[in-house]
This record gives sequence, structure tokens and C-alpha cells, in this order.
Amino acid sequence: MPSQFPFDDIRALIAAIPAADEQARAEALAREANLIKPRGALGRLEEIAVHVAAWQGKARPKVSRPLVAIFAGSHGVVAKGVSAYPSEVNRAMLASFSNSHAAINQICKTYDLGLKVFDLAIDLPTGDITEGAALEEAACAATIAFGMEAIANGTDLLCVGEMGIGNTTPAAAIYAALYGGEVEQWVGRGTGVDDAGYQRKVSAVKQALETHKDHLKDPLEVLRRLGGREIAAIAGAILAARMERVPVILDGYVATAAAAVLHALWPQSIAHCLAGHCSVEGAHAKVLANLGLKPILDLGMRLGEGSGAALAAGIVKAALACHNDMATFAEAGVPDAV
Amino acid sequence: MPSQFPFDDIRALIAAIPAADEQARAEALAREANLIKPRGALGRLEEIAVHVAAWQGKARPKVSRPLVAIFAGSHGVVAKGVSAYPSEVNRAMLASFSNSHAAINQICKTYDLGLKVFDLAIDLPTGDITEGAALEEAACAATIAFGMEAIANGTDLLCVGEMGIGNTTPAAAIYAALYGGEVEQWVGRGTGVDDAGYQRKVSAVKQALETHKDHLKDPLEVLRRLGGREIAAIAGAILAARMERVPVILDGYVATAAAAVLHALWPQSIAHCLAGHCSVEGAHAKVLANLGLKPILDLGMRLGEGSGAALAAGIVKAALACHNDMATFAEAGVPDAV
Repeated sequence: MPSQFPFDDIRALIAAIPAADEQARAEALAREANLIKPRGALGRLEEIAVHVAAWQGKARPKVSRPLVAIFAGSHGVVAKGVSAYPSEVNRAMLASFSNSHAAINQICKTYDLGLKVFDLAIDLPTGDITEGAALEEAACAATIAFGMEAIANGTDLLCVGEMGIGNTTPAAAIYAALYGGEVEQWVGRGTGVDDAGYQRKVSAVKQALETHKDHLKDPLEVLRRLGGREIAAIAGAILAARMERVPVILDGYVATAAAAVLHALWPQSIAHCLAGHCSVEGAHAKVLANLGLKPILDLGMRLGEGSGAALAAGIVKAALACHNDMATFAEAGVPDAV
Repeated sequence: MPSQFPFDDIRALIAAIPAADEQARAEALAREANLIKPRGALGRLEEIAVHVAAWQGKARPKVSRPLVAIFAGSHGVVAKGVSAYPSEVNRAMLASFSNSHAAINQICKTYDLGLKVFDLAIDLPTGDITEGAALEEAACAATIAFGMEAIANGTDLLCVGEMGIGNTTPAAAIYAALYGGEVEQWVGRGTGVDDAGYQRKVSAVKQALETHKDHLKDPLEVLRRLGGREIAAIAGAILAARMERVPVILDGYVATAAAAVLHALWPQSIAHCLAGHCSVEGAHAKVLANLGLKPILDLGMRLGEGSGAALAAGIVKAALACHNDMATFAEAGVPDAV
């Protein structure tokens, strides 16, 4: 995405994103009302099926090429002692994804989901956000554009996840910048830091907010200054999916930071997204509430890797199977409510 | 199960049920701690894997023959106008299960779960609980014994569900009898009755409690007087699974009534059970809390058919896949926490 003002291209893209297909939504809703079950008895499964119908523009939507995209980045702020794990874990985890050793591999196999891993310069950490910007504008815009490649080979349901030692700190900084209030409320234990590590995370976020305080009104500036490559790339993946009207499932605390940036630019820009789960990390539940998203699952998870989104994709598959393959009252000869 | 005092046989069975394998539990816990993820980061997935390990008695448990068992019954109390649907729906729904037309068929296909439907004299309604006992003792004990057949052909994960027009009223009566307090708190809208229908449900439960008030100290009497055949059969299925140390996933509001009866007899008798989901029907959340069960899913469902349990089985499969097939830190060469 070469341009003299790269962020302007992102803004132009957001201004041009398509809306849902309201005709398909109405037809899907009508179908749900005729299936052999009491009205509404499948609860969120019905809502999910109608959501996918509206975004795919089909009253009988299909998920035959679901994809989990993991974006992996490396963070300069790790130097400030914000993680329980060393940055070498990044490369080791990339190898684990390739070798089918990680949790996400097993979840993808269980539900027959495709998996793609994007290495975002894993050996080149971003700038330390406490001291300067994570990324230059051109690099950030290029990373957003790279994230758009997630759907290049086609998918009908995109799950976005991440991996990056230290990346809950940039995510917390983004939430603190977007939503304000006490910094502590946005910071969690990440992979499991002790009390001193938690204090280092809080300090790093406070320092980052101080360092960048004059530049945080524009959500894209928040992203490039306080974020990281995986968060920027996820923002791109979400936007690219939207252009093709592919529904998206967000993973947890870090992946949602990309959605929060887009939402701050224009709330409607994430209307095609479902929240896969509620993480126990930081204030994910509060962030989801701010975004108007109701998580599908709440299983006390905090792993990343797209694991919560992938689990939710299993639920989405069941929701569509019910929507498409159940019989109507008329077809099955079942008496309807008296 | 021929006997002069059939309920005594049930009591004898409960007194003889096996405990979990604590060695397998400890080994499974130790394995979870060595997998390439921060300790505890898979949250409930880890708890579920350890639960299944403890009951199957294997540190690396397997679910290769999961089974959804639906028990279908017919209820005399339907004559009191407690359901939005006529009893003819019972037979039509049995046909729908056979023809793969129902929601549960689609969920079972999605997650590759076996499905068995048990017709419990669907054309012969139980006694109207407002006027007399639903079942004689011998019939109730025989139905419990019949429910034990659910696992006759082998399974390593049993999901118990039900279908029976009007059966949320017997379930509410069981909860009111076991837990006391205002009747209204235990009664919900079932398949979707209007305000007048809801009042008829409340009245029916109050009348049933009055009719049987001198005989509700014994949970098995509560079951036979206020329950129904599907609830009795589920109790049998839960016990049979326990004898073979097969973990069980409970479906929603009605299926949980069987577990509540067993729990009232001896709390440890349902220690092998997981709560598949929290239904929006009646006071299911409160019942689960009374039983010490934390639902895996909370998707606003109230369908029955084992649908919530079957969805949760999909999660259990993912939990076991992670537990069994992830690499350890040592195997993957991933640096552990510093």
C-alpha cells in the first residue's frame, strides 16, 4: 500500500466498507421462525446464524472454508520486564505451530478449521512504547496491509488471533488510551507475571501514555505508537474480511485491541465481528461491553493463539448446521404451537 | 430389575458407586502443567480434561465413542394446559429425530456424536401429577433400569437429554419439592407459554405439591410422584455411566432434574457429571449452583433434545485434543517461564 499519507488510505477504506445484506438477514430470521423448535429456543445459535447470513448475504449461509489466522509479533517493551517469558519463546512458538504442537493446532483439527500463521518480523522487535512509537506510520500502514492478506486465498469465516511475548502490555496501553480511567483496570497478569511483574506492566503502560500523551486522539496514532505489528495486522485482516463481507470471530484480550481501534475510528466498522470468548486477562469483559459485543464463550481462558475464536468457530458451525439442515414445521409435519 | 422393593435396589446401587481415579487425576494435572502454554491458560478446557481423565481412569483420556441419549416421555399434566404445544408433537418429534430433521441431529453431525433416542411409552402419558403420582414405584424403578441401557453398547462420554411436551412442569415440581421456597422461582415459560399458561404451570406445581405433601422427604418418591419417565430414565443413565466410570454431560433444565434427585440421595453420586450449559428456562442457573455445577456454555438456549449437552461435547473434544496432543515444553524445545 504505497502512499504519501498511508493512514489516509486506511481511512478511505473504512469510509467505503459495505453494510450487511438486510434482505438476507430478514430471510434468515424468517427461516429460524419456521424451524421445528419453539421460537428462539436455540438462543445465540439463532443469532449467530442470522449474523453470518446477513454478512455473507445468503439466507442459508455456509462455512466450508473457515480459517484461523495467527499474527505473531515481537515487542520492544519486553525489555521492561513485562512478561514471564523471554522473547525467544516467539520463535519457538512459531515452530510449534508448524509442528502441530500447540493448542490451536488441536482445536483446528477438532473442528476442521484451516490455520495460517503470519510471522511479522518476529526477530525484529517493535520500538519500546515507553520510550517512543512502536512503529513508524509507513510501517504500521504496511503491516495493516499485510494483515489483509489473511483472506487472500479465500475463506467464509475468519478467526483472528495472535502470539507475541509481551503483547498484553501494548494491548493494555491501547485500552487505557482509548477508554481512559485508572490504568490498573486495563492491565492483567498476561502469561502469569507475579506481583512485581504486574507492577512493571502498570508502570510501562503509564510511562507509554505519558510519552505519547500529545498524540493519542487519533485511534490510528494510538495503534502505531502503543500497539504492535500483530495488532496492526489484525486490524487489516478485520477490514479485508469486511470488504468481502466475510464474518470475523475475534479472539481474546490482545486481538480485541485491533477491533477497539477500528471501533474508535468508526463503530460500524466491526459490525461483522463476533466475540469468540471472554478472556480472564485484564479488562476484556469491559472492553467487549464498550464494543457492544457479547462473547460466545466464557471458559476462563487466556492463551491467545486464536484459541478462543477457534473454539467459538465450532459453535458457529453447529449454529449453521441447525439453521440450514433442520426441517421446518411444514416439512416435518410437526404441529406448531397452539 | 425385578424386586419386591425396587427403590431399595436403586439405593443399593448408589451406595456401591465407584469413586474417581485420583492417580489418573494427578497424572493429568501434572501433564497439563507441562504443556506449552502458561499454567492454567486454557482455563476450563484444562479442568474438563482432568475431569474426564479422573473418571475414565486414564491420564490421557479418550472420547472416541461419544453418545447423545435422548429420553422421550409423555405427561398427564399436559391436560392442565401447561404447554404451548399439544402432546401429538411428541410422536412427530420422535419421527424428526429418526429423519435427521431436528436440531440435535445437526449438532451430532457437526461434532461426530452418536445419537440414540429412547421412546418411553410416548403414547401412554404418566399420571397427572396434580391428581396423583406420575408413576407407580415398580414402573419408576423399571424406567430407571431401562435408562441404564443407554450405555449398553459402550460409550466413553454420555450426553443425557430429553424430549416430552409438558415436562418442564414436572421438573419445576421436583425442584420446588427438593429445594422449597416460592414455587414461582422454579417455574419458567417452557416452550413459550403466555402469561395465562405460566399461571397454569405455577398452579399445577402448587397443586402437585399439595397432593403429594406427605411423601416428599424421599427423593425417589419425589421422582416417581412429581417426575416423568424421561427424568427417571436419565437418572438411570447417569447411574449406569457412573458404574462404568463414563463421564456424563447433563443437558438443561429438565435433564438436570434427574441429577438433582440423585444429588439429594447422595451428593457424590453426580460427581462424574458436567453441566453442559445453563438454560434460560426457569431457575436452571440456581439449580446448577445448588448442585455445585458450573455450566460449560451459556448460550440462551432452552430447547432440550440434549442440544446444550451435545454442544458442550464439542468443547470436551477440543479439551481432550489439547490435553493429549499438545507438546510439552521439553518435547517442543520451548523455553518455560523465567
